[in-house]
Amino acid sequence: MSKPLFPALSLFIAATGGRHMTRPAYVAVAIGIMVMILLTVDPAYEAAHRWVDAVLWACLAFFVFEWVVRLRHAVRSQRGLAYTLSFQGLVDTVAAAAIPLALVLGANPKSAWLFGVVWVLKLVPGIPGLRQLRRVLVVESGPLLSVLVIFLMVVFLSSVAEYFLERDVQPATFGSVPAALWWAVVTMTTTGYGDVVPITPLGRIVSALVMISGLGVFGLWTGILATGFAAETRRDNFLKTWETVSKVPFFATLGPAAIADVTHMLRTMDLPARTMIIRKGQHGDCMYFIADGEVEVDLPGKKVSLGEGAFFGEMALLGNNLRSANITTTRMSRLLVLDLVDFRLLMARHPDLAETIDTEAKRRALENK
Amino acid sequence: MSKPLFPALSLFIAATGGRHMTRPAYVAVAIGIMVMILLTVDPAYEAAHRWVDAVLWACLAFFVFEWVVRLRHAVRSQRGLAYTLSFQGLVDTVAAAAIPLALVLGANPKSAWLFGVVWVLKLVPGIPGLRQLRRVLVVESGPLLSVLVIFLMVVFLSSVAEYFLERDVQPATFGSVPAALWWAVVTMTTTGYGDVVPITPLGRIVSALVMISGLGVFGLWTGILATGFAAETRRDNFLKTWETVSKVPFFATLGPAAIADVTHMLRTMDLPARTMIIRKGQHGDCMYFIADGEVEVDLPGKKVSLGEGAFFGEMALLGNNLRSANITTTRMSRLLVLDLVDFRLLMARHPDLAETIDTEAKRRALENK
Amino acid sequence: MSKPLFPALSLFIAATGGRHMTRPAYVAVAIGIMVMILLTVDPAYEAAHRWVDAVLWACLAFFVFEWVVRLRHAVRSQRGLAYTLSFQGLVDTVAAAAIPLALVLGANPKSAWLFGVVWVLKLVPGIPGLRQLRRVLVVESGPLLSVLVIFLMVVFLSSVAEYFLERDVQPATFGSVPAALWWAVVTMTTTGYGDVVPITPLGRIVSALVMISGLGVFGLWTGILATGFAAETRRDNFLKTWETVSKVPFFATLGPAAIADVTHMLRTMDLPARTMIIRKGQHGDCMYFIADGEVEVDLPGKKVSLGEGAFFGEMALLGNNLRSANITTTRMSRLLVLDLVDFRLLMARHPDLAETIDTEAKRRALENK
Amino acid sequence: MSKPLFPALSLFIAATGGRHMTRPAYVAVAIGIMVMILLTVDPAYEAAHRWVDAVLWACLAFFVFEWVVRLRHAVRSQRGLAYTLSFQGLVDTVAAAAIPLALVLGANPKSAWLFGVVWVLKLVPGIPGLRQLRRVLVVESGPLLSVLVIFLMVVFLSSVAEYFLERDVQPATFGSVPAALWWAVVTMTTTGYGDVVPITPLGRIVSALVMISGLGVFGLWTGILATGFAAETRRDNFLKTWETVSKVPFFATLGPAAIADVTHMLRTMDLPARTMIIRKGQHGDCMYFIADGEVEVDLPGKKVSLGEGAFFGEMALLGNNLRSANITTTRMSRLLVLDLVDFRLLMARHPDLAETIDTEAKRRALENK
Repeated sequence: MSKPLFPALSLFIAATGGRHMTRPAYVAVAIGIMVMILLTVDPAYEAAHRWVDAVLWACLAFFVFEWVVRLRHAVRSQRGLAYTLSFQGLVDTVAAAAIPLALVLGANPKSAWLFGVVWVLKLVPGIPGLRQLRRVLVVESGPLLSVLVIFLMVVFLSSVAEYFLERDVQPATFGSVPAALWWAVVTMTTTGYGDVVPITPLGRIVSALVMISGLGVFGLWTGILATGFAAETRRDNFLKTWETVSKVPFFATLGPAAIADVTHMLRTMDLPARTMIIRKGQHGDCMYFIADGEVEVDLPGKKVSLGEGAFFGEMALLGNNLRSANITTTRMSRLLVLDLVDFRLLMARHPDLAETIDTEAKRRALENK
Repeated sequence: MSKPLFPALSLFIAATGGRHMTRPAYVAVAIGIMVMILLTVDPAYEAAHRWVDAVLWACLAFFVFEWVVRLRHAVRSQRGLAYTLSFQGLVDTVAAAAIPLALVLGANPKSAWLFGVVWVLKLVPGIPGLRQLRRVLVVESGPLLSVLVIFLMVVFLSSVAEYFLERDVQPATFGSVPAALWWAVVTMTTTGYGDVVPITPLGRIVSALVMISGLGVFGLWTGILATGFAAETRRDNFLKTWETVSKVPFFATLGPAAIADVTHMLRTMDLPARTMIIRKGQHGDCMYFIADGEVEVDLPGKKVSLGEGAFFGEMALLGNNLRSANITTTRMSRLLVLDLVDFRLLMARHPDLAETIDTEAKRRALENK
Repeated sequence: MSKPLFPALSLFIAATGGRHMTRPAYVAVAIGIMVMILLTVDPAYEAAHRWVDAVLWACLAFFVFEWVVRLRHAVRSQRGLAYTLSFQGLVDTVAAAAIPLALVLGANPKSAWLFGVVWVLKLVPGIPGLRQLRRVLVVESGPLLSVLVIFLMVVFLSSVAEYFLERDVQPATFGSVPAALWWAVVTMTTTGYGDVVPITPLGRIVSALVMISGLGVFGLWTGILATGFAAETRRDNFLKTWETVSKVPFFATLGPAAIADVTHMLRTMDLPARTMIIRKGQHGDCMYFIADGEVEVDLPGKKVSLGEGAFFGEMALLGNNLRSANITTTRMSRLLVLDLVDFRLLMARHPDLAETIDTEAKRRALENK
Repeated sequence: MSKPLFPALSLFIAATGGRHMTRPAYVAVAIGIMVMILLTVDPAYEAAHRWVDAVLWACLAFFVFEWVVRLRHAVRSQRGLAYTLSFQGLVDTVAAAAIPLALVLGANPKSAWLFGVVWVLKLVPGIPGLRQLRRVLVVESGPLLSVLVIFLMVVFLSSVAEYFLERDVQPATFGSVPAALWWAVVTMTTTGYGDVVPITPLGRIVSALVMISGLGVFGLWTGILATGFAAETRRDNFLKTWETVSKVPFFATLGPAAIADVTHMLRTMDLPARTMIIRKGQHGDCMYFIADGEVEVDLPGKKVSLGEGAFFGEMALLGNNLRSANITTTRMSRLLVLDLVDFRLLMARHPDLAETIDTEAKRRALENK
């Protein structure tokens, strides 16, 4: 609609509209939350209330601006409703609208600004491993829920028992089951505030059992999460290797079964820094993919570095088995090795691979002439 | 005996008799427990004691009804004693009979209704992963018991040491070994209420050692459970794959050794959404089982979805190796792949499989004509 | 020396001398410890001091008797010194001699009897999984020690920092570094008694960091133990399988390399109850070992049960590949399967196995005639 | 520069300059820290302030000496700047210079000596498994950071909620968001000092949720670390095996791909003590590496022990397949076995290995003549 006045602003609007967290957005979240916390410290607020108010209004203005830009961008690309109902859309809306609304409805400013804590949720899409953690929680949701139900069951049963045992001795703290429930949660999680403590012998025995159950429940919980996390890590590694493999030109045309085959046939090899992998003139019998680290190819006249995701030595699989350059690791590296023997087995299984290789070998032979 | 008045009631009685938790039963447990808790909160009870009493009596009536229906059902199918002595039977009996019995024996109504917390145990058979958790606890019971014995040993030794060190300084809290035992359990589980705290230098050193032992014991406990859980998950996955495999028509007649072979030969393959697995007209060299996710078969004129447990591409193993339709994942899916090469190895090992396959291939060839 | 008066006593002395924990010994430990605890509860002791004293003296007499019997037994079999210096010997000595010695040296009887807690250590040799736990601790001692050093380092650094920050505000609780060390251990293990709590803003920030480090240290600790435990379990399973395999007659003469080969070639197979494994008259191609569970052999005229460690179907490997009986699991069982194909590979690798098999096959053929 | 007066001093200076922790340095750290702690205990210091001061000055002098020696050594070998900026260099500088500087700048001696706690950091380079732990933290930094962000998010959101719910009831403890943040960290780490405890029903429900989230976060944390540690252990074992393999003369000339192949082909074999591995005169078909434990070679006239990292039976791979001596384990040992069959497969893959072996076999045949 309006042509932006400055190119930088235009770029910034484009970045914000693309729903990325921009650098100013991170700064606004950090400063906004910190100043909101300051607002609740009476002496600090009295000393600098003008500054505090000014910064908070500025942050709010920024988030309203961000919300409007994203909403306009989403509406233009026909995804207005999808954005509004997405997690990010809801957070953006609440972050921009909750405080003004509370102020308009007559809330105490000090309470209204507390909604500023919602700004912290803007960081969620930027957390790197969140998708992985969520998958673990989804995959292991069955056992985790079972443990939660066991947890709640122990909490209920023990709190009624404790209420029965302690209500006459300590009516102030164990005078009702809800009070005993509070004790049970505090004890079972091994938090142990100490504000509600059983004093009768039987009450203490029940309490000891609850603490030990707490450790047991926690151990199960951790065990389940550890198992899920290990499986997820293996899966991620497989997908990552797959991605590396499917980027190699002459594997790109294969079907997923063949790529999975290649992925399974790759052997992982951890090499220390400064290890020579390929020596010029040697007979080659395998190709390498770099999963992690870096290697240096010692070409005549110059040195070329290859990083993560690169591959080398593939000519060995195409019939040309005299290595043409020295290749050395520059630091601790993890390589994936595909052996000629495995590769030929692969060709027997997937005849279309053989054709692809032939074509590629001819092309390279022409290229190298 | 009596013909039920309404069909819905008849259905409900059948469901209850079949010993499933019905939806009304879940509601009754939730409301019953909540109102029982309310009963112990004096102001709430005084404000609404009629309602509270009415709801409690209604819940109790429901559980008595449930008990009677199940008992009648069990007796009719000659399993009366088995039901009564099962966990569920005992819980049903206590849930129905304990409160009336307590009231008849002259207990204070407020105490008698506390037995209502037993209703929460009715949820146990409905917990999804409970069987799995129980197996882990059974399999790892040896090491877990050892850790428990070590735990108790540290508790005993440290509480006697602490009693010896602190009894003169704090006779009120460390005046006897049972009191010191309470301190030891609270400390060793890292609950730390703070009601009993050593103050002598030596007492504090003993206490620090107990805390560190607590972490160690807890770490062992968690490590054991994590190991057990990982093994149990692998076992469950194997059994699940086995079940999927044994449903495939031409594997159904094989013995367990051959099915185990197939199960071990399957390769797992995680595919992103919208990946084409089979392209019409290509040469096929493997069959697929869907472990998780969904694929879409693009048949002429319609699209067919295949879900978890289904299999496709099996014609490739029967000699017909031209794929007859496009098949694509609709979402992130986990497939199990059985390669033609592995399948032939399998046939060499299990000659009866070869015969089955021949028969099947002939049948299909006729069918497709 | 002296011929025992009663055969039961003679048996009991032999069992005790063999250094096993006898049933009376378990009872004596349990009662002794419980009564020793009772001794420290003043009202209980005053009410029943005769009984308490009598039981304690009886327990002590039993442990003195046990010590004398074991010592005599050890001396007779020339292992007197080895026994005295072993863990059990030391515990036996202290359990028998410490209390009389303390009383003779003039200690208060109430304090002297506290040594009775040493009796609990008599249970140590009876803990089932202790050897396994010890191996884990030994194997992972390097990383565990590193974590302990990190733990102590954080404790030292944070307690000096906290002492510096809090000493002027709370001289009573943070008045010296040892007092701050107590705070640091209580906080880092997340015990949190609450008797020593920082109140300055900076002190609280340091404290928050210590708590989070505590979780980190604990997580590392648990992770190390879980890894070690998983490795130990795999190792135990391998050794157990090995033992099963080496009991099979025609493997017994092989060297360890061949047995290790067999062990690696075995495939694990979990079967549900009532699954038919072998059908009479079928072609057999594998033999089975029972790792866990039970199978039933349906012989003409009778049913034979085979339990853990047994094997069957071995004739299939000896050339006789027509199964001679139906074999079915009676409950959830874990079988180890050795395929004919793998077995022949094994024979190619180990020529001496081939000879053994030939001899065995001839012997069985004669036997079955 | 100066010729040292005594040889012992000269040796000590060389060891210190080589940047190792010498035994006197460990003693100085231990004594220095302990006396520094004593300094802060008023009664102890008053009783022995001359001794305390003397010991502290002696320790300081030792560390200044150590710093000077190392600096001189580094400057001489042209690494002066690298040393000064390394972790050890910085610790050495602070350990030597901080206290004198503080005293010169007029700080209270009791405060100045607190810098002595930095001496504890001198132990860091000596911690055995630290490099391994650091690698785990680096590799898993992504998920660990995600969990930390989730932790902080729950802390922020819950502390604002709790401040809102409790500020009117408990203005002294929940009077500002920073105070509520303190509560949130203490609760979420399940430390639970009990100095700040919610008392309103809603506040307690929020608190219970925070405690359960704490367990969840902690479980994730532990699960991630356990997974990372298991992977790191596998990696370490592979590298260790690799190192063992690459020390064998006739593997030394192979490229890394072949060594990795050998490493993967090795089978692990755990043997009990006193098991005969090789019998003189038998046909040999494999060679062995000792990963852990010890074996005894029964040569004519003497017995030779081989320990971790040694190998034997390699002649079997070179064509000489009659074993020439009995070899027995002396204790529980872990051997790595390389089979002749696998070895021949290896030779097919790596033709240069075949040549090496031929040469070696001829050389040995000559040698044995």
